[in-house]
Amino acid sequence: MPVKRDTYTPESLLTVAVRVFNERGYDGTSMEHLSRAAGISKSSIYHHVRGKEELLRRAISRALDGLFGILEEPGAVRGRAVDRLEHVVRRTAEVLMDELPYVTLLLRVRGNTDTELWAMARRREFDQQVTRLLRQAAAEGDLRGDVDARLATRLLFGMINSLVEWYRPERGDTAGGSGGPGRSSRDEVAEAVVRTAFAGLRTAPD
Amino acid sequence: MPVKRDTYTPESLLTVAVRVFNERGYDGTSMEHLSRAAGISKSSIYHHVRGKEELLRRAISRALDGLFGILEEPGAVRGRAVDRLEHVVRRTAEVLMDELPYVTLLLRVRGNTDTELWAMARRREFDQQVTRLLRQAAAEGDLRGDVDARLATRLLFGMINSLVEWYRPERGDTAGGSGGPGRSSRDEVAEAVVRTAFAGLRTAPD
Repeated sequence: MPVKRDTYTPESLLTVAVRVFNERGYDGTSMEHLSRAAGISKSSIYHHVRGKEELLRRAISRALDGLFGILEEPGAVRGRAVDRLEHVVRRTAEVLMDELPYVTLLLRVRGNTDTELWAMARRREFDQQVTRLLRQAAAEGDLRGDVDARLATRLLFGMINSLVEWYRPERGDTAGGSGGPGRSSRDEVAEAVVRTAFAGLRTAPD
Repeated sequence: MPVKRDTYTPESLLTVAVRVFNERGYDGTSMEHLSRAAGISKSSIYHHVRGKEELLRRAISRALDGLFGILEEPGAVRGRAVDRLEHVVRRTAEVLMDELPYVTLLLRVRGNTDTELWAMARRREFDQQVTRLLRQAAAEGDLRGDVDARLATRLLFGMINSLVEWYRPERGDTAGGSGGPGRSSRDEVAEAVVRTAFAGLRTAPD
Protein backbone atom coordinates (compact mmCIF):
# COMPACT_ATOMS: atom_id res chain seq x y z
CA MET A 1 0.00 0.00 0.00
CA PRO A 2 1.53 3.34 -1.02
CA VAL A 3 2.08 5.47 2.03
CA LYS A 4 0.72 9.00 1.78
CA ARG A 5 2.44 11.43 4.03
CA ASP A 6 0.18 12.40 6.92
CA THR A 7 -0.43 16.10 6.49
CA TYR A 8 -3.61 16.06 8.55
CA THR A 9 -4.40 18.21 11.52
CA PRO A 10 -7.07 17.07 13.98
CA GLU A 11 -9.31 19.69 12.28
CA SER A 12 -8.86 18.53 8.67
CA LEU A 13 -9.14 14.87 9.71
CA LEU A 14 -12.47 15.77 11.33
CA THR A 15 -13.76 17.17 8.03
CA VAL A 16 -13.09 13.84 6.31
CA ALA A 17 -14.54 11.79 9.18
CA VAL A 18 -17.78 13.79 9.28
CA ARG A 19 -18.27 13.31 5.55
CA VAL A 20 -17.81 9.54 5.89
CA PHE A 21 -20.08 9.37 8.99
CA ASN A 22 -22.83 11.18 7.06
CA GLU A 23 -22.43 8.94 4.02
CA ARG A 24 -22.25 5.55 5.77
CA GLY A 25 -23.87 6.32 9.10
CA TYR A 26 -21.75 6.40 12.25
CA ASP A 27 -22.49 2.76 13.09
CA GLY A 28 -21.58 1.66 9.59
CA THR A 29 -18.20 3.43 9.61
CA SER A 30 -15.06 1.51 10.60
CA MET A 31 -11.54 2.82 11.21
CA GLU A 32 -10.71 1.07 7.93
CA HIS A 33 -13.26 3.26 6.09
CA LEU A 34 -11.81 6.38 7.70
CA SER A 35 -8.28 5.32 6.84
CA ARG A 36 -9.24 4.76 3.19
CA ALA A 37 -11.16 8.05 2.90
CA ALA A 38 -8.30 10.02 4.45
CA GLY A 39 -5.64 8.15 2.47
CA ILE A 40 -3.51 7.58 5.58
CA SER A 41 -2.94 4.50 7.71
CA LYS A 42 -5.02 3.62 10.76
CA SER A 43 -2.02 4.16 13.00
CA SER A 44 -1.65 7.68 11.58
CA ILE A 45 -5.26 8.32 12.57
CA TYR A 46 -4.57 6.95 16.06
CA HIS A 47 -1.76 9.48 16.23
CA HIS A 48 -4.44 12.23 16.14
CA VAL A 49 -7.36 10.67 18.02
CA ARG A 50 -8.13 7.73 20.25
CA GLY A 51 -10.73 6.34 17.88
CA LYS A 52 -13.86 7.03 15.92
CA GLU A 53 -15.93 7.92 18.98
CA GLU A 54 -13.55 10.80 19.72
CA LEU A 55 -14.05 12.06 16.17
CA LEU A 56 -17.80 11.83 16.68
CA ARG A 57 -17.58 13.71 19.99
CA ARG A 58 -15.52 16.49 18.41
CA ALA A 59 -17.89 16.82 15.46
CA ILE A 60 -21.00 16.85 17.66
CA SER A 61 -19.35 19.39 19.99
CA ARG A 62 -18.81 21.72 17.07
CA ALA A 63 -22.52 21.54 16.13
CA LEU A 64 -23.65 21.95 19.75
CA ASP A 65 -21.24 24.85 20.42
CA GLY A 66 -22.72 26.61 17.41
CA LEU A 67 -26.29 26.04 18.57
CA PHE A 68 -25.82 26.82 22.28
CA GLY A 69 -23.73 29.86 21.36
CA ILE A 70 -26.90 31.36 19.85
CA LEU A 71 -28.63 31.37 23.23
CA GLU A 72 -25.95 33.71 24.59
CA GLU A 73 -26.07 36.24 21.77
CA PRO A 74 -27.42 39.69 22.70
CA GLY A 75 -30.50 39.12 20.48
CA ALA A 76 -31.35 36.01 22.45
CA VAL A 77 -31.04 37.48 25.93
CA ARG A 78 -32.44 41.01 25.62
CA GLY A 79 -35.87 42.27 24.60
CA ARG A 80 -39.31 40.73 24.45
CA ALA A 81 -39.50 36.94 24.40
CA VAL A 82 -41.06 36.87 20.94
CA ASP A 83 -38.16 38.86 19.46
CA ARG A 84 -35.62 36.69 21.25
CA LEU A 85 -37.41 33.63 19.89
CA GLU A 86 -37.34 35.05 16.37
CA HIS A 87 -33.61 35.70 16.75
CA VAL A 88 -33.01 32.14 17.93
CA VAL A 89 -35.05 30.66 15.06
CA ARG A 90 -33.22 32.70 12.42
CA ARG A 91 -29.81 31.98 13.90
CA THR A 92 -30.55 28.27 14.31
CA ALA A 93 -31.35 28.07 10.59
CA GLU A 94 -28.15 29.99 9.83
CA VAL A 95 -25.92 27.85 12.06
CA LEU A 96 -27.45 24.74 10.52
CA MET A 97 -26.54 25.99 7.03
CA ASP A 98 -23.07 27.26 8.06
CA GLU A 99 -22.19 24.04 9.88
CA LEU A 100 -24.23 21.76 7.61
CA PRO A 101 -22.25 18.48 7.88
CA TYR A 102 -21.81 18.82 11.65
CA VAL A 103 -25.46 19.57 12.38
CA THR A 104 -26.55 16.86 9.93
CA LEU A 105 -24.50 14.38 11.95
CA LEU A 106 -26.00 15.66 15.21
CA LEU A 107 -29.53 15.23 13.88
CA ARG A 108 -28.86 11.67 12.76
CA VAL A 109 -27.24 10.09 15.83
CA ARG A 110 -29.12 7.06 17.07
CA GLY A 111 -28.08 6.62 20.68
CA ASN A 112 -25.95 3.46 20.50
CA THR A 113 -22.92 4.89 22.35
CA ASP A 114 -22.38 7.21 25.32
CA THR A 115 -21.38 10.01 22.97
CA GLU A 116 -24.60 9.62 20.98
CA LEU A 117 -26.72 9.54 24.15
CA TRP A 118 -24.97 12.70 25.34
CA ALA A 119 -25.62 14.34 21.95
CA MET A 120 -29.32 13.49 22.12
CA ALA A 121 -29.60 14.79 25.68
CA ARG A 122 -27.97 18.11 24.72
CA ARG A 123 -30.25 18.40 21.69
CA ARG A 124 -33.29 17.93 23.93
CA GLU A 125 -31.91 20.63 26.25
CA PHE A 126 -31.67 23.05 23.35
CA ASP A 127 -35.23 22.23 22.26
CA GLN A 128 -36.46 22.74 25.82
CA GLN A 129 -34.88 26.17 26.03
CA VAL A 130 -36.70 27.12 22.84
CA THR A 131 -39.97 25.72 24.23
CA ARG A 132 -39.51 27.87 27.35
CA LEU A 133 -39.00 30.96 25.22
CA LEU A 134 -42.13 30.06 23.24
CA ARG A 135 -44.17 29.70 26.45
CA GLN A 136 -42.91 33.06 27.68
CA ALA A 137 -43.79 34.78 24.40
CA ALA A 138 -47.28 33.25 24.54
CA ALA A 139 -47.68 34.40 28.17
CA GLU A 140 -46.72 37.92 27.06
CA GLY A 141 -49.50 37.75 24.46
CA ASP A 142 -47.20 37.84 21.43
CA LEU A 143 -47.70 34.25 20.31
CA ARG A 144 -51.01 32.56 19.66
CA GLY A 145 -52.27 30.59 22.62
CA ASP A 146 -54.10 27.96 20.59
CA VAL A 147 -51.01 25.99 19.55
CA ASP A 148 -49.36 24.00 22.34
CA ALA A 149 -45.78 25.22 23.01
CA ARG A 150 -44.20 21.77 22.75
CA LEU A 151 -46.05 21.05 19.56
CA ALA A 152 -45.05 24.45 18.13
CA THR A 153 -41.41 23.74 19.02
CA ARG A 154 -41.56 20.44 17.18
CA LEU A 155 -43.07 22.00 14.08
CA LEU A 156 -40.50 24.81 14.18
CA PHE A 157 -37.59 22.38 14.37
CA GLY A 158 -39.28 20.14 11.80
CA MET A 159 -39.15 23.04 9.39
CA ILE A 160 -35.61 24.15 10.30
CA ASN A 161 -34.07 20.68 10.51
CA SER A 162 -35.50 19.73 7.12
CA LEU A 163 -32.87 22.07 5.64
CA VAL A 164 -30.27 19.32 6.04
CA GLU A 165 -32.26 17.26 3.51
CA TRP A 166 -32.21 19.79 0.68
CA TYR A 167 -30.12 22.89 1.42
CA ARG A 168 -26.78 22.91 -0.37
CA PRO A 169 -24.35 25.79 0.16
CA GLU A 170 -23.94 28.28 -2.63
CA ARG A 171 -20.99 27.83 -4.89
CA GLY A 172 -18.22 30.38 -4.61
CA ASP A 173 -19.10 32.01 -7.94
CA THR A 174 -22.60 32.87 -6.84
CA ALA A 175 -21.78 33.93 -3.28
CA GLY A 176 -24.19 36.61 -2.18
CA GLY A 177 -26.46 35.81 -5.10
CA SER A 178 -29.45 33.54 -5.29
CA GLY A 179 -27.30 30.43 -5.70
CA GLY A 180 -28.42 29.94 -9.30
CA PRO A 181 -31.81 29.10 -10.78
CA GLY A 182 -34.05 27.27 -8.33
CA ARG A 183 -31.50 27.69 -5.58
CA SER A 184 -32.12 29.83 -2.54
CA SER A 185 -29.33 31.64 -0.76
CA ARG A 186 -28.59 31.15 2.93
CA ASP A 187 -30.09 34.53 3.87
CA GLU A 188 -33.17 33.97 1.73
CA VAL A 189 -33.76 30.60 3.38
CA ALA A 190 -33.32 31.96 6.92
CA GLU A 191 -35.69 34.83 6.13
CA ALA A 192 -38.29 32.44 4.66
CA VAL A 193 -38.14 30.26 7.78
CA VAL A 194 -38.74 33.26 10.05
CA ARG A 195 -41.55 34.68 7.90
CA THR A 196 -43.34 31.37 7.52
CA ALA A 197 -43.05 30.44 11.18
CA PHE A 198 -44.02 33.79 12.68
CA ALA A 199 -46.27 35.50 10.14
CA GLY A 200 -47.54 32.48 8.18
CA LEU A 201 -47.85 32.10 4.43
CA ARG A 202 -51.27 33.71 4.13
CA THR A 203 -51.48 37.41 3.44
CA ALA A 204 -53.11 39.41 6.21
CA PRO A 205 -56.90 39.79 5.82
CA ASP A 206 -58.02 43.23 4.61
CA MET B 1 -36.95 -25.16 13.31
CA PRO B 2 -40.55 -25.33 14.53
CA VAL B 3 -42.90 -24.66 11.66
CA LYS B 4 -45.56 -22.05 12.35
CA ARG B 5 -48.65 -22.44 10.25
CA ASP B 6 -48.81 -19.69 7.64
CA THR B 7 -51.92 -17.71 8.48
CA TYR B 8 -50.75 -14.60 6.65
CA THR B 9 -52.61 -12.73 3.99
CA PRO B 10 -50.66 -10.46 1.61
CA GLU B 11 -52.02 -7.57 3.71
CA SER B 12 -50.89 -8.82 7.15
CA LEU B 13 -47.52 -9.90 5.75
CA LEU B 14 -47.11 -6.35 4.46
CA THR B 15 -47.64 -4.95 7.97
CA VAL B 16 -44.76 -7.06 9.28
CA ALA B 17 -42.50 -6.25 6.33
CA VAL B 18 -43.02 -2.48 6.65
CA ARG B 19 -42.15 -2.63 10.35
CA VAL B 20 -38.90 -4.49 9.58
CA PHE B 21 -38.04 -2.17 6.65
CA ASN B 22 -38.47 0.86 8.93
CA GLU B 23 -36.37 -0.71 11.70
CA ARG B 24 -33.48 -2.02 9.61
CA GLY B 25 -33.74 0.11 6.50
CA TYR B 26 -34.88 -1.48 3.22
CA ASP B 27 -31.30 -2.15 2.05
CA GLY B 28 -30.44 -3.78 5.37
CA THR B 29 -33.43 -6.17 5.29
CA SER B 30 -32.99 -9.68 3.90
CA MET B 31 -35.66 -12.32 3.19
CA GLU B 32 -34.17 -14.10 6.21
CA HIS B 33 -35.02 -11.10 8.43
CA LEU B 34 -38.56 -11.03 7.05
CA SER B 35 -38.96 -14.76 7.56
CA ARG B 36 -37.82 -14.50 11.19
CA ALA B 37 -40.03 -11.47 11.94
CA ALA B 38 -43.08 -13.13 10.40
CA GLY B 39 -42.32 -16.48 12.00
CA ILE B 40 -42.85 -18.33 8.72
CA SER B 41 -40.42 -19.86 6.24
CA LYS B 42 -38.98 -17.99 3.29
CA SER B 43 -40.83 -20.29 0.90
CA SER B 44 -44.10 -19.36 2.63
CA ILE B 45 -43.31 -15.71 1.98
CA TYR B 46 -42.57 -16.52 -1.67
CA HIS B 47 -46.01 -18.06 -1.76
CA HIS B 48 -47.43 -14.56 -1.21
CA VAL B 49 -44.97 -12.30 -3.02
CA ARG B 50 -42.12 -12.55 -5.50
CA GLY B 51 -39.64 -10.97 -3.14
CA LYS B 52 -38.88 -8.04 -0.89
CA GLU B 53 -39.06 -5.48 -3.69
CA GLU B 54 -42.70 -6.45 -4.30
CA LEU B 55 -43.40 -5.85 -0.61
CA LEU B 56 -41.71 -2.45 -0.87
CA ARG B 57 -43.75 -1.59 -3.98
CA ARG B 58 -47.02 -2.52 -2.27
CA ALA B 59 -46.15 -0.54 0.85
CA ILE B 60 -45.09 2.54 -1.11
CA SER B 61 -48.21 2.27 -3.27
CA ARG B 62 -50.37 2.42 -0.18
CA ALA B 63 -48.65 5.63 0.98
CA LEU B 64 -48.81 7.20 -2.49
CA ASP B 65 -52.46 6.23 -3.03
CA GLY B 66 -53.28 7.96 0.25
CA LEU B 67 -51.40 11.11 -0.71
CA PHE B 68 -52.53 11.38 -4.36
CA GLY B 69 -56.10 10.58 -3.26
CA ILE B 70 -56.08 13.91 -1.39
CA LEU B 71 -55.60 15.84 -4.63
CA GLU B 72 -58.93 14.46 -5.93
CA GLU B 73 -60.98 15.28 -2.85
CA PRO B 74 -63.64 18.00 -3.32
CA GLY B 75 -61.74 20.32 -0.96
CA ALA B 76 -58.68 20.07 -3.19
CA VAL B 77 -60.40 20.73 -6.51
CA ARG B 78 -63.03 23.38 -5.73
CA GLY B 79 -62.70 26.90 -4.37
CA ARG B 80 -59.90 29.41 -4.13
CA ALA B 81 -56.37 28.08 -4.48
CA VAL B 82 -55.44 29.12 -0.93
CA ASP B 83 -58.32 27.11 0.54
CA ARG B 84 -57.50 24.12 -1.63
CA LEU B 85 -53.89 24.39 -0.49
CA GLU B 86 -54.97 24.53 3.15
CA HIS B 87 -57.10 21.43 2.59
CA VAL B 88 -54.18 19.59 1.00
CA VAL B 89 -51.81 20.56 3.84
CA ARG B 90 -54.24 19.43 6.54
CA ARG B 91 -55.08 16.17 4.78
CA THR B 92 -51.40 15.43 4.04
CA ALA B 93 -50.65 15.69 7.76
CA GLU B 94 -53.65 13.45 8.50
CA VAL B 95 -52.75 10.80 5.91
CA LEU B 96 -49.19 10.82 7.22
CA MET B 97 -50.46 10.11 10.76
CA ASP B 98 -53.08 7.56 9.64
CA GLU B 99 -50.62 5.66 7.43
CA LEU B 100 -47.57 6.39 9.57
CA PRO B 101 -45.40 3.31 8.84
CA TYR B 102 -46.15 3.42 5.10
CA VAL B 103 -45.41 7.13 4.69
CA THR B 104 -42.32 6.79 6.92
CA LEU B 105 -41.03 4.15 4.53
CA LEU B 106 -41.81 6.37 1.52
CA LEU B 107 -39.89 9.28 3.04
CA ARG B 108 -36.84 7.12 3.76
CA VAL B 109 -36.25 5.37 0.44
CA ARG B 110 -32.81 6.01 -0.99
CA GLY B 111 -33.09 5.27 -4.69
CA ASN B 112 -31.04 2.06 -4.98
CA THR B 113 -33.69 0.05 -6.86
CA ASP B 114 -36.23 0.79 -9.62
CA THR B 115 -39.04 0.75 -7.07
CA GLU B 116 -37.24 3.31 -4.92
CA LEU B 117 -36.54 5.55 -7.91
CA TRP B 118 -40.21 5.34 -8.89
CA ALA B 119 -41.21 6.22 -5.31
CA MET B 120 -38.95 9.27 -5.32
CA ALA B 121 -40.27 10.41 -8.70
CA ARG B 122 -43.88 10.13 -7.52
CA ARG B 123 -43.03 12.01 -4.32
CA ARG B 124 -41.51 14.83 -6.38
CA GLU B 125 -44.68 14.89 -8.51
CA PHE B 126 -46.80 15.33 -5.39
CA ASP B 127 -44.54 18.13 -4.15
CA GLN B 128 -44.73 19.84 -7.56
CA GLN B 129 -48.53 19.76 -7.52
CA VAL B 130 -48.44 21.48 -4.14
CA THR B 131 -45.94 24.05 -5.44
CA ARG B 132 -48.29 24.80 -8.34
CA LEU B 133 -51.16 25.34 -5.93
CA LEU B 134 -48.96 27.64 -3.86
CA ARG B 135 -48.03 29.68 -6.93
CA GLN B 136 -51.67 30.00 -7.91
CA ALA B 137 -52.66 31.15 -4.40
CA ALA B 138 -49.87 33.73 -4.46
CA ALA B 139 -51.00 34.93 -7.90
CA GLU B 140 -54.53 35.34 -6.49
CA GLY B 141 -53.06 37.54 -3.76
CA ASP B 142 -53.87 35.16 -0.89
CA LEU B 143 -50.31 34.07 -0.13
CA ARG B 144 -47.39 36.36 0.58
CA GLY B 145 -45.28 37.01 -2.47
CA ASP B 146 -42.02 37.43 -0.58
CA VAL B 147 -41.40 33.72 0.00
CA ASP B 148 -40.44 31.73 -3.09
CA ALA B 149 -43.04 29.02 -3.87
CA ARG B 150 -40.53 26.17 -4.07
CA LEU B 151 -38.90 27.25 -0.85
CA ALA B 152 -42.29 27.52 0.85
CA THR B 153 -43.20 24.02 -0.36
CA ARG B 154 -40.00 22.65 1.12
CA LEU B 155 -40.60 24.33 4.46
CA LEU B 156 -44.21 23.12 4.49
CA PHE B 157 -43.19 19.52 3.84
CA GLY B 158 -40.30 19.88 6.28
CA MET B 159 -42.83 20.68 8.97
CA ILE B 160 -45.33 18.00 7.93
CA ASN B 161 -42.80 15.24 7.27
CA SER B 162 -41.13 15.80 10.64
CA LEU B 163 -44.23 14.19 12.16
CA VAL B 164 -42.80 10.77 11.29
CA GLU B 165 -39.95 11.50 13.74
CA TRP B 166 -42.10 12.16 16.79
CA TYR B 167 -45.82 11.58 16.25
CA ARG B 168 -47.05 8.35 17.80
CA PRO B 169 -50.70 7.31 17.38
CA GLU B 170 -52.96 7.64 20.39
CA ARG B 171 -53.61 4.50 22.34
CA GLY B 172 -57.11 3.04 22.10
CA ASP B 173 -58.02 4.14 25.63
CA THR B 174 -57.47 7.80 24.89
CA ALA B 175 -58.98 7.83 21.41
CA GLY B 176 -60.52 11.22 20.74
CA GLY B 177 -58.65 12.66 23.72
CA SER B 178 -55.37 14.47 23.88
CA GLY B 179 -53.35 11.27 23.82
CA GLY B 180 -52.21 11.69 27.42
CA PRO B 181 -49.97 14.27 29.08
CA GLY B 182 -47.54 15.84 26.64
CA ARG B 183 -49.13 13.97 23.75
CA SER B 184 -51.04 15.72 21.04
CA SER B 185 -53.95 14.09 19.27
CA ARG B 186 -54.06 13.61 15.49
CA ASP B 187 -56.59 16.41 15.02
CA GLU B 188 -54.68 18.78 17.30
CA VAL B 189 -51.48 18.15 15.33
CA ALA B 190 -53.15 18.66 11.93
CA GLU B 191 -54.75 21.88 13.18
CA ALA B 192 -51.41 23.14 14.57
CA VAL B 193 -49.69 22.47 11.24
CA VAL B 194 -52.34 24.45 9.34
CA ARG B 195 -52.36 27.34 11.81
CA THR B 196 -48.58 27.60 11.96
CA ALA B 197 -48.10 27.37 8.20
CA PHE B 198 -50.87 29.75 7.15
CA ALA B 199 -51.35 32.21 9.99
CA GLY B 200 -47.95 31.96 11.71
CA LEU B 201 -47.22 31.68 15.41
CA ARG B 202 -47.27 35.41 16.11
CA THR B 203 -50.52 37.01 17.19
CA ALA B 204 -51.90 39.57 14.75
CA PRO B 205 -50.66 43.13 15.44
CA ASP B 206 -53.28 45.39 17.06
